[in-house]
Amino acid sequence: MRSLPFDQIKLSDAFWGRWHKVLVETTLPTQFDQLEQTGRLANLERAAGKRDGDFEGLWFNDSDVYKFVEACAYGLGMQRDAKVQAHYDRCVEIIQAAQQPDGYINSFFQVRFPDLKWRNLHLMHEMYCGGHLIEAGVAAYECLGDRRLLDVSTRFADHVSSVFGPDKRLGYCGHEEIELALIRLAGATGEEKYRESARWMVESRGHRPSPFAAELHDAEAVSAWPVQGCHFTTDGTLGGPYDGQYAQDHAPIRQHDSVVGHAVRAMYLYIAAAELCDEDDVELQSALIRAWQSLTARRMYITGGIGPSSSNEGFTTDFDLPNLTAYAETCASCGLVFWGSKMLEMTGDGDYVDVMERALFNGALSGISLSGDRYFYTNPLESRGGNERTPWFGCACCPPNIARLIGSISKYLVSVSDDAFYVHTPASLEATPSFGGVPVTLKIDADYPWSGKYRVTVEPTEPVQFKLKLRIPAWSGEVEIDFPKCDEPANYESGYAVYDRVWKAGDALTVDLGMEPSWVEADPRVKDCLGRVALTNGPLVYACEEQDLGYAPQLFSADTEAPIEQKKSKALGGVSMLSATGLAYVESPADELFTAAGTADLVESQATCIPYFAWCNRGTTNMQVWLRRM
Amino acid sequence: MRSLPFDQIKLSDAFWGRWHKVLVETTLPTQFDQLEQTGRLANLERAAGKRDGDFEGLWFNDSDVYKFVEACAYGLGMQRDAKVQAHYDRCVEIIQAAQQPDGYINSFFQVRFPDLKWRNLHLMHEMYCGGHLIEAGVAAYECLGDRRLLDVSTRFADHVSSVFGPDKRLGYCGHEEIELALIRLAGATGEEKYRESARWMVESRGHRPSPFAAELHDAEAVSAWPVQGCHFTTDGTLGGPYDGQYAQDHAPIRQHDSVVGHAVRAMYLYIAAAELCDEDDVELQSALIRAWQSLTARRMYITGGIGPSSSNEGFTTDFDLPNLTAYAETCASCGLVFWGSKMLEMTGDGDYVDVMERALFNGALSGISLSGDRYFYTNPLESRGGNERTPWFGCACCPPNIARLIGSISKYLVSVSDDAFYVHTPASLEATPSFGGVPVTLKIDADYPWSGKYRVTVEPTEPVQFKLKLRIPAWSGEVEIDFPKCDEPANYESGYAVYDRVWKAGDALTVDLGMEPSWVEADPRVKDCLGRVALTNGPLVYACEEQDLGYAPQLFSADTEAPIEQKKSKALGGVSMLSATGLAYVESPADELFTAAGTADLVESQATCIPYFAWCNRGTTNMQVWLRRM
Repeated sequence: MRSLPFDQIKLSDAFWGRWHKVLVETTLPTQFDQLEQTGRLANLERAAGKRDGDFEGLWFNDSDVYKFVEACAYGLGMQRDAKVQAHYDRCVEIIQAAQQPDGYINSFFQVRFPDLKWRNLHLMHEMYCGGHLIEAGVAAYECLGDRRLLDVSTRFADHVSSVFGPDKRLGYCGHEEIELALIRLAGATGEEKYRESARWMVESRGHRPSPFAAELHDAEAVSAWPVQGCHFTTDGTLGGPYDGQYAQDHAPIRQHDSVVGHAVRAMYLYIAAAELCDEDDVELQSALIRAWQSLTARRMYITGGIGPSSSNEGFTTDFDLPNLTAYAETCASCGLVFWGSKMLEMTGDGDYVDVMERALFNGALSGISLSGDRYFYTNPLESRGGNERTPWFGCACCPPNIARLIGSISKYLVSVSDDAFYVHTPASLEATPSFGGVPVTLKIDADYPWSGKYRVTVEPTEPVQFKLKLRIPAWSGEVEIDFPKCDEPANYESGYAVYDRVWKAGDALTVDLGMEPSWVEADPRVKDCLGRVALTNGPLVYACEEQDLGYAPQLFSADTEAPIEQKKSKALGGVSMLSATGLAYVESPADELFTAAGTADLVESQATCIPYFAWCNRGTTNMQVWLRRM
Repeated sequence: MRSLPFDQIKLSDAFWGRWHKVLVETTLPTQFDQLEQTGRLANLERAAGKRDGDFEGLWFNDSDVYKFVEACAYGLGMQRDAKVQAHYDRCVEIIQAAQQPDGYINSFFQVRFPDLKWRNLHLMHEMYCGGHLIEAGVAAYECLGDRRLLDVSTRFADHVSSVFGPDKRLGYCGHEEIELALIRLAGATGEEKYRESARWMVESRGHRPSPFAAELHDAEAVSAWPVQGCHFTTDGTLGGPYDGQYAQDHAPIRQHDSVVGHAVRAMYLYIAAAELCDEDDVELQSALIRAWQSLTARRMYITGGIGPSSSNEGFTTDFDLPNLTAYAETCASCGLVFWGSKMLEMTGDGDYVDVMERALFNGALSGISLSGDRYFYTNPLESRGGNERTPWFGCACCPPNIARLIGSISKYLVSVSDDAFYVHTPASLEATPSFGGVPVTLKIDADYPWSGKYRVTVEPTEPVQFKLKLRIPAWSGEVEIDFPKCDEPANYESGYAVYDRVWKAGDALTVDLGMEPSWVEADPRVKDCLGRVALTNGPLVYACEEQDLGYAPQLFSADTEAPIEQKKSKALGGVSMLSATGLAYVESPADELFTAAGTADLVESQATCIPYFAWCNRGTTNMQVWLRRM
């Protein structure tokens, strides 16, 4: 199973079309302004010798430029735009100029510490930044046919291989990323050596002695870093003994039982590992499935947010999922979408898409405002008014990450294999794959995520056999597929309804996934959700905001037996709102803080809920996903 | 209204007797060992020139020695003990030796920074430490007739007055304490000047320009302090503009509307202010009552814990009372008991005792283990197993604070005025006040807090008129007073049942305060308590621990309509346990983290609850005060 090349898929979807328009018209231009204003481009110009002054900001800030370029490549691949093109070209030229003749590129080290390169892989993110450079290079090549950054990328990758490798120095990055990037580079260039380099890094990680431990004793380098007193010690906490968990260096990948440490790092490692997993490598496959299970059955918010703790930007213990203080970094949910897609490709199992959609439509999209120019770094499931999206961050990983996810969304909606076309997530689009050399046009008309009904039309240039695989989500109620020209019922396998037949021009079917608003509860071991329910509709998790309620949603308790009303609204970019019935405490001034139980007044109330991703787009507010149950 | 002198009251109470035995036999000896082992005594020896080496520990560590001495004075006043006497004498001698000829004493400055005294009143706690010295001196004098520390105290107070005063330098301490201490010193010595010095400090506070602001610019001193990078900047947070809230320097005392900043500091300020408030000073009285109301109606846990936030060890916003992360410092609840007693004396209103008992029997006593040698600094109202009392702290303010509260408990149980005897909190004791020169023996037999029934016997040496005032708590149900020899019913005023009569030998009455287990709810504006109830019995708040339940109490929801069973137990030092009926989620391994509402199994369950103060005496555990309501 693989994504379709970008030129074989054309989105015409209302939901994603709105996001793409916002991406090109607002998100990318405003992000470019931020890159300029915060010195991120200036840093690379300094590395290129074209500007004076010291490095500005955080040592991994080059990566934001690269992720921005990657997002531009996706955006420009879909839609020409002179302004974005100019921003993109400007960045590419600066990056080209900044690269050293030996292939090294990292403006922090080039400008401030030219003699301390590769001296602290754990903290200093050189390979991490290079990984994002490579992803940008591959995306630019694949979407735009532009080789400029692909060439920069291969030079950088070759430089890394000249320093690190099986017969050279043992080394991998504290923040995983380059591994998955090298695999993409191998795919784009056909050079297997990059894939093997990634495999070596993934498999070397977690053994003892760890190369990170020795870096602590590199006194000259350690005293130079700008991270004294911050939490980026080797284990992610100050002063503790090195256990490696923070950067997934605690155990070899094949022994992993659960996701630990920094959430984004973990995602990026597992993306690479899943890509590297050969079909007959049962050991690695099992480890990945164990890690996935530990994440999705014990350590994931209902929104697909992951990593509850701010202290390590990551994982804590099973079922520790506090709502008000949830970290649930936007990047981590993006990473979960990426990892899920690789697990899906590895196994062909549609269950992975359930989690991908959970993260995509909730915890990831909540990271960006509907206007496309403000961002959440953390995505709590309850707010008491203290949360607000901002235009940028000192550590600005999230804005370009959500931008590149939105830009590349078509990679995750449908897939092909040699003999099958997969519809994972319905969206209006036209795909033009070929099966056995026969070009086929598949047209999907959908109104997802607002409706579970969609239509697929198949137009092969001549009759051709292939499988059409239609995903049946776990949340589906009664599924109905109407395929007038077909007498055979679908086969159901691995979460898909499968039609394996010879397709002819004009074949068309309609699918109704049975999407109904429903109340969900959490495993009772999630203490923060006990006695609470969340309202969902298909892949969407709903949130209740004070603006719609007229009072803080914490006061509301839901009657899960009452009918849920659904109402299409033009507000918030066009969403389906849900209205629940329940009881609400009346907040009335009282002299006594504590009174006999039953003193407070309760009144019947209707609570209008909006999709979680759309919360906090009307000012700061009280918000709650997990409502108390009556 | 005033406390009885220590020699006019003799406790024979089961509840407080157990604590006093533990105090003398365990708490004081083990605290002395800690003072020795942690260098606190050594610091004073260094100041005295009797030991080499640098100052050890935190700059305010002398105060722990003083508070320990104060607690010893109370303990020895009640019960001779050779070991405690030796510890006490050792401390007194070291303190005497450490004092400079000019009266100054603070081992941190004497040992490490002799040239930087009085250079930073906001941060450096010199007056705070001196205040605790004075309290120790007064207690030793009043309980034991020992003048040694009283003399040290007057010399210190006179030294302070030689530096600071209306016609000298403007100055008061960042951590209030010396104000209330000077008032005690005035009482013990009869020297009004100390009281006036306190008044000047209290009234000077909060005006602009603040003397604290200037201290920031004392470069030589600022660079010397060992507190770089910790939260003790002038406003209690790093980098913000000076607003004075952290140390109640935000506004003059007479303009205070609500309690703000560091909780212990606020309590100590208000204790002094209440003591200084003249009967006709309506302005100050109103400010104190406003502050009290803001605290007890909007910013206090049901346990009498105050100051929810660890970041400033203090107050945040109205109704912000998170349970799991409650800071609720032991010292702050001790301070609330002290402040309440001064408000009670100022107003004669028994409502203050309701709050005092809430803090005393719950949030303060929870600060010490039943064994008397382990302490909580913070007192959360929910635990998920991460809490445990420890034998000592780097910042060890709490252990000797709870020790001195326990040691001096008789000050808070009953009071006298010229014509009245008050029973605030029932306890078995014998009091021997005089009214109009006639000695009277009042004997109380009680089993409080386990029972609301008690008996008072009055034995005047000759018939004498005075008022017997028996407090009727806010939680009282049907109160019954049986007074066979008296035909008149009691008058009820300001929370007391009052018998104003000529008392004769053998007069006796029994009181039943109508104590019944009951469920309590919080003001709906306390978001963390919505849908929750707490079990109480009289002054006691109950907690549910996993040990008694067999599963985490978070899984339980209470049926507030079902009867509550009460059972006396010998466990936990002898407590009344309460058993509630309800439903419990069954924690069973599930593959799915999120399922349709109603999936989880619920079973009927009985939840045995113990007094909050006794929690975590059987190992770390899941605990909850605010149980979900069915």
